[in-house]
Amino acid sequence: MSHFLSRHASGLEPYVPGEQPLDRQYIKLNTNECPYPPAPGIARLLAGHTGREFALYPDPEAKDLRGAIARRYGLAIEEVFVGNGSDEVLAFLCMAFFDRGDPINFPDPSYGFYGVYANLFGLRARLIPLAEDFSLRVEDYLQRDGHILLANPNAPTGLALSRSKIERILKGNPHRLVVVDEAYVDFAGEDVTSLPLLRDYDNLMIVGTFSKSRSLAGLRLGYAFSRPEHIAALERIKYSFHPYNVNRLTQQAGVIAVEDDAYLSHVLEKITATRDRTALRLQELGCRVLPSSANFLFVAHPSLTGRELYQKLREKGMLVRCFEHPRTLEFVRVSIGTDEEMKAFLHVVEETL
Amino acid sequence: MSHFLSRHASGLEPYVPGEQPLDRQYIKLNTNECPYPPAPGIARLLAGHTGREFALYPDPEAKDLRGAIARRYGLAIEEVFVGNGSDEVLAFLCMAFFDRGDPINFPDPSYGFYGVYANLFGLRARLIPLAEDFSLRVEDYLQRDGHILLANPNAPTGLALSRSKIERILKGNPHRLVVVDEAYVDFAGEDVTSLPLLRDYDNLMIVGTFSKSRSLAGLRLGYAFSRPEHIAALERIKYSFHPYNVNRLTQQAGVIAVEDDAYLSHVLEKITATRDRTALRLQELGCRVLPSSANFLFVAHPSLTGRELYQKLREKGMLVRCFEHPRTLEFVRVSIGTDEEMKAFLHVVEETL
Repeated sequence: MSHFLSRHASGLEPYVPGEQPLDRQYIKLNTNECPYPPAPGIARLLAGHTGREFALYPDPEAKDLRGAIARRYGLAIEEVFVGNGSDEVLAFLCMAFFDRGDPINFPDPSYGFYGVYANLFGLRARLIPLAEDFSLRVEDYLQRDGHILLANPNAPTGLALSRSKIERILKGNPHRLVVVDEAYVDFAGEDVTSLPLLRDYDNLMIVGTFSKSRSLAGLRLGYAFSRPEHIAALERIKYSFHPYNVNRLTQQAGVIAVEDDAYLSHVLEKITATRDRTALRLQELGCRVLPSSANFLFVAHPSLTGRELYQKLREKGMLVRCFEHPRTLEFVRVSIGTDEEMKAFLHVVEETL
Repeated sequence: MSHFLSRHASGLEPYVPGEQPLDRQYIKLNTNECPYPPAPGIARLLAGHTGREFALYPDPEAKDLRGAIARRYGLAIEEVFVGNGSDEVLAFLCMAFFDRGDPINFPDPSYGFYGVYANLFGLRARLIPLAEDFSLRVEDYLQRDGHILLANPNAPTGLALSRSKIERILKGNPHRLVVVDEAYVDFAGEDVTSLPLLRDYDNLMIVGTFSKSRSLAGLRLGYAFSRPEHIAALERIKYSFHPYNVNRLTQQAGVIAVEDDAYLSHVLEKITATRDRTALRLQELGCRVLPSSANFLFVAHPSLTGRELYQKLREKGMLVRCFEHPRTLEFVRVSIGTDEEMKAFLHVVEETL
């Protein structure tokens, strides 16, 4: 490693993203992407695009995009921040609201990047263990010392927390920021999102992404919703880091994606139906399947560890994800693909029994 | 401002990018964009693109793009890092090689973002004043305490430093990293880039961008060249911040842009010819014009301050940039547009005399 590496950088433990092997064609069920294409208007956008305007910097305020998102979610444009994927939004948020040495509370297990950010920004990570059944106990989140970050639905478990429970956490931490990462919320039905709580709670920030339900992982678009003063804090970081964070095409495609509600509903119906059918069949086969509100299933095979099942699937050209966390060694996380892909997946699971 | 704002964030002084007003059509000579479209292959890429694959995350290793850049510049792929614009590369570099409180040396005046980064990452900025004529005195950069960051050609002056001078700085700081920001180097002829020095100096890092000569400011693509171990340090930060930093379309367009050398030469010829003609005419009109090796001119009008000339041009629908720096109050920075745009610009300058 570089002899110029800073002490701080030498202590980092970077995130390991799901593998993207190029050695052969795989059925990719490992990074929670959407198996369906983005909104059809995006193909039309590309067909009519000369690329001429790529010579000009994008609007650093991303006004058209933020306006479209604000309209769709019933917010003011000042309540919307956009980033180069929701990971960037989370990183900026750490820089905006945390000083080095500050505590940050998040559930364990949850999205692996939260610990990476704690490390990157010198925060004291306070991992709050989930209950035995992976549910989150609200009482563990009341009057915490330090801001709170949680994913709802959670990853990799897929479990959702009800809005009333989020509200209890908000009420219990009036002087703390409560960040709810809603990357998977569209797959959870309409009662899970904390969106309606934004009006009443000035300590709520919602983070979301176009990478899952809106099929735009490849273009990178994440967002945050909160009170204008908190959004202004994120902008402050953005203008100290790189003001042109969301490129032109992504701003344009994002408008099209967020305005096509019919297509979103269509995709959500297909994925949730496939998910529920797959879960049922896995249970019939003797697997333990956590009740999922996301576009993936968290599955424990009756006779194989997560890593073993992962290996067997990989040999058959199917990628899922397993985790090193001591509490989830039994499990694999399986993204919901097309019906055909899930049939192939179920076939391999059956073979191993 | 947010009552949750971190102490650190409250002390930031964010960068102010060149204005992008939407109130009317302007001739934009204020952000050093290219007046010509990107390589023609990019229009073909878009025409044949369905957007289907945007549902999948981009390759976090950006292998095709880094491979194409490496081939073009005679490097190994391990010597190439890519980022979401060169601003992101600079930010990652600060995180990789500097600890809080470390000194960072850079010329003054130079690219305004260097001071913003020093502030953002808690570094002690050591501004090294340029000589009276805005040239850089190599002896000011020998055996510095702390790493060195300099733009070559410099902005906003447009002045280039010879390769032999960069080499003296590298030799004089064997235990320090010397970062050369070559955003504008393509406009400087072939003798300015530090590329040939990479083989002999393990303390050199070159940063570059596709936003200027390659007309891709709107798609965001920056890069760094250095020894593999230093590139690995940047990757370490990337995987702790957001692994999917360069989106799919930008990776594809970047390959096309970097492989089309004929088009690059064509654009460079046009811009440098327009630049040199414009400089000559401005001098005939009594303006002071620094000898530019970039795609902009740094111009002092004989009777107006920079801000006054900026205002007059703005009223006529033309945007240039003026600066608050005490040493550059007389100047405006004028990006080189098409011949027609520069004629319009010269016309307004003539009118004010």
